[in-house]
Amino acid sequence: MVLAEAKPRDARDRAAVDAVIAALAARYGNRLVTSQAVREQHGNTLTWIANQPPDAVIFPQSTAEVQDIVRLAAAHRVPVIAFGTGTSLEGHVNAPRGGICLDFHDMNRVLAVHAEDLDCVVEPGITRKALNEHLRDQGVFFPIDPGADASLGGMAATRCSGTNAVRYGTMKDNVLALKAVLADGEVMSTARRAKKSSSGYDLTRLLIGAEGTLGIITELTLKLSGIPEAISAGVCPFPSVEACCRATILTIQSGIPVARIELLDALQVRAVNLHSRLGLPETPLLFVEFHGTAASVAEQAERFGEIASDFGGGPFDWATRQEDRTRLWEARHHAALSNKALRPGAQLVATDVCVPISRLAQCVVETQRDIEASRLLAPIVGHVGDGNFHLTLLVDMDDADEIKRAQALAERLVERALAMDGTCTGEHGVGQGKMKYLLAEHGAPALAAMRTIKQALDPLDILNPGKIVAL
Amino acid sequence: MVLAEAKPRDARDRAAVDAVIAALAARYGNRLVTSQAVREQHGNTLTWIANQPPDAVIFPQSTAEVQDIVRLAAAHRVPVIAFGTGTSLEGHVNAPRGGICLDFHDMNRVLAVHAEDLDCVVEPGITRKALNEHLRDQGVFFPIDPGADASLGGMAATRCSGTNAVRYGTMKDNVLALKAVLADGEVMSTARRAKKSSSGYDLTRLLIGAEGTLGIITELTLKLSGIPEAISAGVCPFPSVEACCRATILTIQSGIPVARIELLDALQVRAVNLHSRLGLPETPLLFVEFHGTAASVAEQAERFGEIASDFGGGPFDWATRQEDRTRLWEARHHAALSNKALRPGAQLVATDVCVPISRLAQCVVETQRDIEASRLLAPIVGHVGDGNFHLTLLVDMDDADEIKRAQALAERLVERALAMDGTCTGEHGVGQGKMKYLLAEHGAPALAAMRTIKQALDPLDILNPGKIVAL
Repeated sequence: MVLAEAKPRDARDRAAVDAVIAALAARYGNRLVTSQAVREQHGNTLTWIANQPPDAVIFPQSTAEVQDIVRLAAAHRVPVIAFGTGTSLEGHVNAPRGGICLDFHDMNRVLAVHAEDLDCVVEPGITRKALNEHLRDQGVFFPIDPGADASLGGMAATRCSGTNAVRYGTMKDNVLALKAVLADGEVMSTARRAKKSSSGYDLTRLLIGAEGTLGIITELTLKLSGIPEAISAGVCPFPSVEACCRATILTIQSGIPVARIELLDALQVRAVNLHSRLGLPETPLLFVEFHGTAASVAEQAERFGEIASDFGGGPFDWATRQEDRTRLWEARHHAALSNKALRPGAQLVATDVCVPISRLAQCVVETQRDIEASRLLAPIVGHVGDGNFHLTLLVDMDDADEIKRAQALAERLVERALAMDGTCTGEHGVGQGKMKYLLAEHGAPALAAMRTIKQALDPLDILNPGKIVAL
Repeated sequence: MVLAEAKPRDARDRAAVDAVIAALAARYGNRLVTSQAVREQHGNTLTWIANQPPDAVIFPQSTAEVQDIVRLAAAHRVPVIAFGTGTSLEGHVNAPRGGICLDFHDMNRVLAVHAEDLDCVVEPGITRKALNEHLRDQGVFFPIDPGADASLGGMAATRCSGTNAVRYGTMKDNVLALKAVLADGEVMSTARRAKKSSSGYDLTRLLIGAEGTLGIITELTLKLSGIPEAISAGVCPFPSVEACCRATILTIQSGIPVARIELLDALQVRAVNLHSRLGLPETPLLFVEFHGTAASVAEQAERFGEIASDFGGGPFDWATRQEDRTRLWEARHHAALSNKALRPGAQLVATDVCVPISRLAQCVVETQRDIEASRLLAPIVGHVGDGNFHLTLLVDMDDADEIKRAQALAERLVERALAMDGTCTGEHGVGQGKMKYLLAEHGAPALAAMRTIKQALDPLDILNPGKIVAL
């Protein structure tokens, strides 16, 4: 197809948008929505970044429809933004230049489960909980679990991870292939179902983490894992956050294949207690989980117990029943939101960094000191087995000085992580919020390469423009 | 820098090459070599594809030198081809348009080992054995082991794997970051040492498997693994290749974390016996290895033993001593070369495919029938835990009919794998030999995206031109 001629990107072309909306309305009827409320819902949800709603929201039902919508948008040079559950944290789905938001709510089918190959094929709108519900009776599961019940398309687009990543990897490790609509409306399949391949450029990994700026994912082939024969989970209190980190570091270095190892500082525990009524001791904690055979899980737990006690950890509170484990991990997944209970009315400003694990204890301890010196309330929670931790700043958005201190703290956190050879985001992604750190993290040549790729694959800059790299 | 104007790619510009060679000779003295013998050695080694030597070979000693060489070549639009150990199998280092081969032999240092973070930083010329020699006393190792003692740069460039991939993944899973010289001479660092990141496009994975066509790798940050506390390895005979495959499939589906599970058909066993004098029973075999704690290894071996015996496998021959295991795996690594003993003077034509594991038995059995019907000698060996297997065709290059039959067999193998949703190459890579299959495997839009990326990052087509995608 012939693409429309490039126009100056800042001149918002109302006529073009109106033309696209009219054409979409004619084709898709009430699946195109332009109400202010729905548009704002799709601008952003869980972020502190100001809402920038799209011009319209459409609910496609097939790859062919996505193709049709993208072609129409491309012809008029109108942005298209893929939307899963709106649970991203860095303004990923904001529409700074307007455009059409594609909400994948209705593309939520499981297309195939190949339990014998440990893979499945899904549409991007299915959420991780719905997928695991579907898979459960086949003895397999999909391990990636960001806090929210996010959509698989969004999870791939943001290269997310979660509590199981220390054992099972992140989205980059658990997607075998993608189908995606490109900026020119072509449908690309990146790979086959083979478990490994050395055939051609890794287009799968290029789209994972690209946040919808290089293509719109319409199908995912996911790697599955067998549901472990035995699972053991528990909570272990420690005298300090540093002790938690040091126990974690030694656990990883010792090669214990821990499935989950999560830090909560005392303030975070208080929030979780307020929200989930777990009655946990309000001291730094590690939530841990082991997967394997019964014998292997017992051995892992024993070895971890020895390490924990070397750092003053204990006594353990083991969650032996499935329902206790579910309660525990639900509480963990609600940790960020539970912080609302600590300061009702405050805005949650979430951020995350990831450092080499040998630097973790220092990074967390220095950050705690910084929080204190900044007179801010900011619980810490982290996937510490990967060196990844989160800060949830509780900010009074009517207090300009507090906002300034919060922003400065968040900036220092990133600087601290980068100085330790870490990354400005372990799993939240770049969106709008972290674009300013990419130069410091990756350097000019890598950033230029990213921009070159974006320009080559999306010359009209219509795919989620203004995210990751600005053209 | 300003790049030279693009010239028609087919007009081999002798004057340009001469100018580059003269400038390099002036700067690098006898580190630039133009003798016919050395050039031919660098054209290709282990492949059946005809030798296409570069115009000169240079031995850089630093990233800055690589930068200098690439800039000079770019200014004259002369190809540059990175070379590790020359053990690739699909014509990856051939120079169809001449140019300068950069042999990384002298860039073989370990720059840093962070055992506590399970990572290290190396130059691309170090080989996997030299690296593991260096690491051994620190309790860590790098698990990826293609048959040859390949260089780490080449291993990354070809997205290779080997016998441990079923447990430890491939190069894509074991590289944290790369430093690379781009086509314009800029040096790009793709990522930090953090174990995970969702910051920006995955340039690391884009370079892995790109075979030097998007950038020249000059430094690698590798993920390491702890040396297992206990290792148990053994050989298990089976009544048929199909029984081997079915036992493998059930092992993987059962979630036994086998570290290595390798198929050798009877003919391959005969070759290994001739070459390595192991005295193995000349029947289809699985070589297996388990890693973990002593208790876990014992449990894995017991469970695998039960599965094997269900398919008529056994009795086991366990390699309990380290030296026995070394002998076993060296024999496995020499399997392809040992085939020379089966038919002295024949050319080895190696190929590999990878299929979803549920299709493995069928794919191998049909391939064996095809070999028989084709009246060819072609042992089968495979990393069957991943659904990946190799054929080594022993071809009399003076017999035109046999060459034709061999080529037809290799094509049918790829077609069979693709029809099973597999890939045309599990670990050998594309090079020149498998370019013709990329359209069938990936489809036109994905291939076009690869070409777009290549064109954008290497507009003058100087980085290993004529491989993967031809511009």
